[in-house]
Amino acid sequence: MRVAIIGATGYTGGELLRLLAKHEKIEDIEIASRTYKGEPLFKVHPHLREIYKDLTFISPDEVDSDLVFTATPHGASLKIVPSLLERGMKVIDLSGDYRFENLEVYEKYYKVKHPGLPEANIAYGLPELFRKEIKKADLVANPGCFPTGSILLLAPLVKHNLIEERVIIDAKTGVSGAGANPSEVTHFPNVNEDIKPYKVVDHRHKPEIEEKLNKLGKVRVSFTPHLAPITRGILTTAHTFLKENLELEEILKLYREFYKDESFIRVYEEIPKLSYVRGSNYCDIGGFAIDDNLRLVLFSVIDNLVKGASGQAIQNMNIMMGFDEKEGLNIIPLNP
Amino acid sequence: MRVAIIGATGYTGGELLRLLAKHEKIEDIEIASRTYKGEPLFKVHPHLREIYKDLTFISPDEVDSDLVFTATPHGASLKIVPSLLERGMKVIDLSGDYRFENLEVYEKYYKVKHPGLPEANIAYGLPELFRKEIKKADLVANPGCFPTGSILLLAPLVKHNLIEERVIIDAKTGVSGAGANPSEVTHFPNVNEDIKPYKVVDHRHKPEIEEKLNKLGKVRVSFTPHLAPITRGILTTAHTFLKENLELEEILKLYREFYKDESFIRVYEEIPKLSYVRGSNYCDIGGFAIDDNLRLVLFSVIDNLVKGASGQAIQNMNIMMGFDEKEGLNIIPLNP
Amino acid sequence: MRVAIIGATGYTGGELLRLLAKHEKIEDIEIASRTYKGEPLFKVHPHLREIYKDLTFISPDEVDSDLVFTATPHGASLKIVPSLLERGMKVIDLSGDYRFENLEVYEKYYKVKHPGLPEANIAYGLPELFRKEIKKADLVANPGCFPTGSILLLAPLVKHNLIEERVIIDAKTGVSGAGANPSEVTHFPNVNEDIKPYKVVDHRHKPEIEEKLNKLGKVRVSFTPHLAPITRGILTTAHTFLKENLELEEILKLYREFYKDESFIRVYEEIPKLSYVRGSNYCDIGGFAIDDNLRLVLFSVIDNLVKGASGQAIQNMNIMMGFDEKEGLNIIPLNP
Amino acid sequence: MRVAIIGATGYTGGELLRLLAKHEKIEDIEIASRTYKGEPLFKVHPHLREIYKDLTFISPDEVDSDLVFTATPHGASLKIVPSLLERGMKVIDLSGDYRFENLEVYEKYYKVKHPGLPEANIAYGLPELFRKEIKKADLVANPGCFPTGSILLLAPLVKHNLIEERVIIDAKTGVSGAGANPSEVTHFPNVNEDIKPYKVVDHRHKPEIEEKLNKLGKVRVSFTPHLAPITRGILTTAHTFLKENLELEEILKLYREFYKDESFIRVYEEIPKLSYVRGSNYCDIGGFAIDDNLRLVLFSVIDNLVKGASGQAIQNMNIMMGFDEKEGLNIIPLNP
Repeated sequence: MRVAIIGATGYTGGELLRLLAKHEKIEDIEIASRTYKGEPLFKVHPHLREIYKDLTFISPDEVDSDLVFTATPHGASLKIVPSLLERGMKVIDLSGDYRFENLEVYEKYYKVKHPGLPEANIAYGLPELFRKEIKKADLVANPGCFPTGSILLLAPLVKHNLIEERVIIDAKTGVSGAGANPSEVTHFPNVNEDIKPYKVVDHRHKPEIEEKLNKLGKVRVSFTPHLAPITRGILTTAHTFLKENLELEEILKLYREFYKDESFIRVYEEIPKLSYVRGSNYCDIGGFAIDDNLRLVLFSVIDNLVKGASGQAIQNMNIMMGFDEKEGLNIIPLNP
Repeated sequence: MRVAIIGATGYTGGELLRLLAKHEKIEDIEIASRTYKGEPLFKVHPHLREIYKDLTFISPDEVDSDLVFTATPHGASLKIVPSLLERGMKVIDLSGDYRFENLEVYEKYYKVKHPGLPEANIAYGLPELFRKEIKKADLVANPGCFPTGSILLLAPLVKHNLIEERVIIDAKTGVSGAGANPSEVTHFPNVNEDIKPYKVVDHRHKPEIEEKLNKLGKVRVSFTPHLAPITRGILTTAHTFLKENLELEEILKLYREFYKDESFIRVYEEIPKLSYVRGSNYCDIGGFAIDDNLRLVLFSVIDNLVKGASGQAIQNMNIMMGFDEKEGLNIIPLNP
Repeated sequence: MRVAIIGATGYTGGELLRLLAKHEKIEDIEIASRTYKGEPLFKVHPHLREIYKDLTFISPDEVDSDLVFTATPHGASLKIVPSLLERGMKVIDLSGDYRFENLEVYEKYYKVKHPGLPEANIAYGLPELFRKEIKKADLVANPGCFPTGSILLLAPLVKHNLIEERVIIDAKTGVSGAGANPSEVTHFPNVNEDIKPYKVVDHRHKPEIEEKLNKLGKVRVSFTPHLAPITRGILTTAHTFLKENLELEEILKLYREFYKDESFIRVYEEIPKLSYVRGSNYCDIGGFAIDDNLRLVLFSVIDNLVKGASGQAIQNMNIMMGFDEKEGLNIIPLNP
Repeated sequence: MRVAIIGATGYTGGELLRLLAKHEKIEDIEIASRTYKGEPLFKVHPHLREIYKDLTFISPDEVDSDLVFTATPHGASLKIVPSLLERGMKVIDLSGDYRFENLEVYEKYYKVKHPGLPEANIAYGLPELFRKEIKKADLVANPGCFPTGSILLLAPLVKHNLIEERVIIDAKTGVSGAGANPSEVTHFPNVNEDIKPYKVVDHRHKPEIEEKLNKLGKVRVSFTPHLAPITRGILTTAHTFLKENLELEEILKLYREFYKDESFIRVYEEIPKLSYVRGSNYCDIGGFAIDDNLRLVLFSVIDNLVKGASGQAIQNMNIMMGFDEKEGLNIIPLNP
């Protein structure tokens, strides 16, 4: 099989290449970037030197593959994806452009006019909840990093209607989520020895989490992300209120049941750590506890560049193409 | 004036010494430690070399000062403080031993039998709320680091009865809060590149926050701390629900009014950062925002070793002794 | 094939397990630890949960495999290894106990009485220099982490007699090199925001580097390691003086030639970074530059837990057993 | 006294303001920045909120003070400084523009045409070596951060002619040395979990170190800096070769004698740490050791923004103005 990556110069592009190198069904890879056209891969991704010999950036227009990953900024995908679909390629888009059913919400949060969804089977690429839709899709909208950790963390509670409608998500992310381009926000002395809240009520991932969770049950999401002085990983802390008292064992059992057939979800009692999933496609869920206000607190951890982006994209590809869902994703976490 | 520090070998001891060195009213300092008796100060605090010439650890029993800081572990203070009071010394205790009015709560959370409060004027040493009591006190219980950040952050809302009873505090602390003794929790590879929730519903500071806030109004606290890969600082994120819609300006105005005479509280619209207060006695409060669920989110930052411990202890001393409250605390934050 | 790991609870044990899980020739794994006997693997290595189902620690005495990795402290290996050899198992020892030909030097630096080398084919496990000996060995002494980075960096220069005898190695290591046990040295606030020289003239790895390099040519090594606030990786900076002026191109060519058949050595002009090799078995060498004092400076980077320990151990196993040398080691670096 | 800071928006500007706020001789401060003209100080330096009330940026052209700190980029100072001197102001320039006696060297390393030195008493502002010249100067060239740590570390050895001519300096710096402007080099994921050599033979500070040390004795400097994942501080490791064997005690004694009247130099046996000097004007020197190759290794630590920049600038001002040299610089290090 032949795949292409458009926008292969960023972190998600690099991670797709790391993972695809071990994917048994991949026969050929195209990497496209307008800026780096003609340059060898290792100029942009020095860690991949010797891994892909002779791979060179081509222009996005030259792409001709069975499936294309568009790791392009939001807004840019809107311009590229329809023509790829028209030319018969399957597309997995890593931007926010095709994640929303409600395009008004998209336009409000992304400040971009949406031209409307293309005529195609479109699925939201969170396999644990939408595997059936993904299987039939021509275009998969790969979820945002925060939504992946948040939705997987809360889905069983919402589905089983165990918690009050108002849910608080206090998320902590590594800096690689901000991408490979430097800015004041990512300037080392601004990040180091600090932990910084940002977009504290209006982050774009808030409505994404809300739209998808509401397919399972009624929920109103309050979402606040924090930038932590780490490179990889998202810890999601969910503060919820139980409708009625429950034993922790019941909740744990319910989670284990909910995810029992999932290869990439690990549910356990202990508090999860970023290092338990680093570099891998796992989402670990644990640390369940209830206090005397009937607050249930629980946690998930993901590698934002893997399960939160490129790993999940390959998981989606495997489903779309009928491959083993774990193919190329048997990565063991790097700890410490 | 003559002061002593019992338990001067830890981080709070070191910070007391850093600050007292510049305090104009201090004529003499005793440092006490059973383990390091006879050793020069710089063996334990090399950064203080040349600052205090010829200062040597004495035994706690030899202490004879006007005021004593007990920077001893909880449980140990219970044994030391009463005799210091009997010998006519004023005491500022940095442990949890005298923070609670409800001793049953203390015993439940600290797993220590409390012999009862001594016959003395005892105050909870959060000057912004209890200045009058501190002025008259012989024994001041210096607040915990988390309670300092949390109570100062929420007091105006609770006092003015603006929020629902249930409040969620999601706190992030640096590792110096765990003290100078190494453990698995503070082992560098276990902390670095991670952010770790701990004692997610049963941290000792939870009932402390709750007892003190309930003096201002009815509130039920859900508290979850996280260990972040930084050395100094606590960021406190409070998630509250407004009883009715309010303009942010009103809230900001109310906070400014509440703290208008306070030298160490800075209130502003912007999101506060740990580096804005590092090394100083400031508590910065800001980042107020309201989302469409009427959740009000707001933030405070402190240096856990200064306003969260030793700086506040000196502020308390200044009040007890009738000194200028800012004496010795005119430290400008170290940023970056 | 059946392998065992004695001392499987530390970081190198965890890494062996991460890598062996993907090794096609491994049919069975035993993990041994006196302390954790009977415990499931994930209690000690939570990131390996679900990777090895049902793997439980056994006692070291019960080990019965074709090949044993002894990830035991120095001194301990001296007691364990001979009996394993006698029982017909091959051994790869990760301690310092069998690295020296000159046992007096070992005894001086390790403060341990050496009972003498066992009757067995023993090799120093740096495949790029001693592949032939490793192939025939029953016991391989896996090199220290610093020696791996230092010897590979300097071997071509020494072999070709291009530099003055006195060589300065200024090494910077991550904290995982200190192992999984907490100590004052690894206490987060002692490491963070610092970079600390230690054992500045008498580190144990100095004589190891010297003994092995002197097999290639005459060299006197001055070695100073520094502890950096990172988890994984060693950057080795070598300061050497050229005997006569050379073009950088010649030196680069010589290095490429020297390592042309090596799968795990990448030589290039650019300055190498730890993130280019993280999690992988690569040793990258680059950054060659000559100043007006004829000083040649050059750099190597390795992941101290992989090429500096467990990855190299598996590389040695592959050579000893006649497997493809890269088997199980096709790990792509994790960057960022 | 009235002072001005031109280029007050960067880290060194912020540090000057932190220190000047406590300086007893300062009656008025002007802050100048073309970009931020008219903005209040706290917009650029939020940590200084409430410290300087009502301080607002003016245009550099409006500056009218007794003494001006030019914290401007190299090249820019060349254009500003002469006119300030002509208008009768004293100047302390923090750029590289006036550090060199040999202007050809300046032009080679800075790629800027130097118009020639102004008619004025110019001194190189390293008080421990050039105090007499500074006292008479109208223009002081404040040393670079690396030269400060390196020259102070090596001066006694060079002066006493104890070491071979060729000296190797392997320096490790925090990221704040790169300034407040973001770039690819300072992008958090590029710095974190790495330690990166840069300008490994041709850093601008190399000839500065060499020119100044050669006033004390003959020496040829090989200099290689590394960027470490920390915010503040420079650790300088010097590798030298003794001409003949010496006892460490002799060397230590010689250093103590050399710096015996210096308030900001602390000499000791132990290995110095960045945290021992953080935020302060100290330069600590220690860790002396000799190996069997007669290599003498030794270390200095400074806070690059204080003794390496703004603190030293104020020390120079104190000398120029006849103030107590320590005025405003009695800052106790912040540890941890």
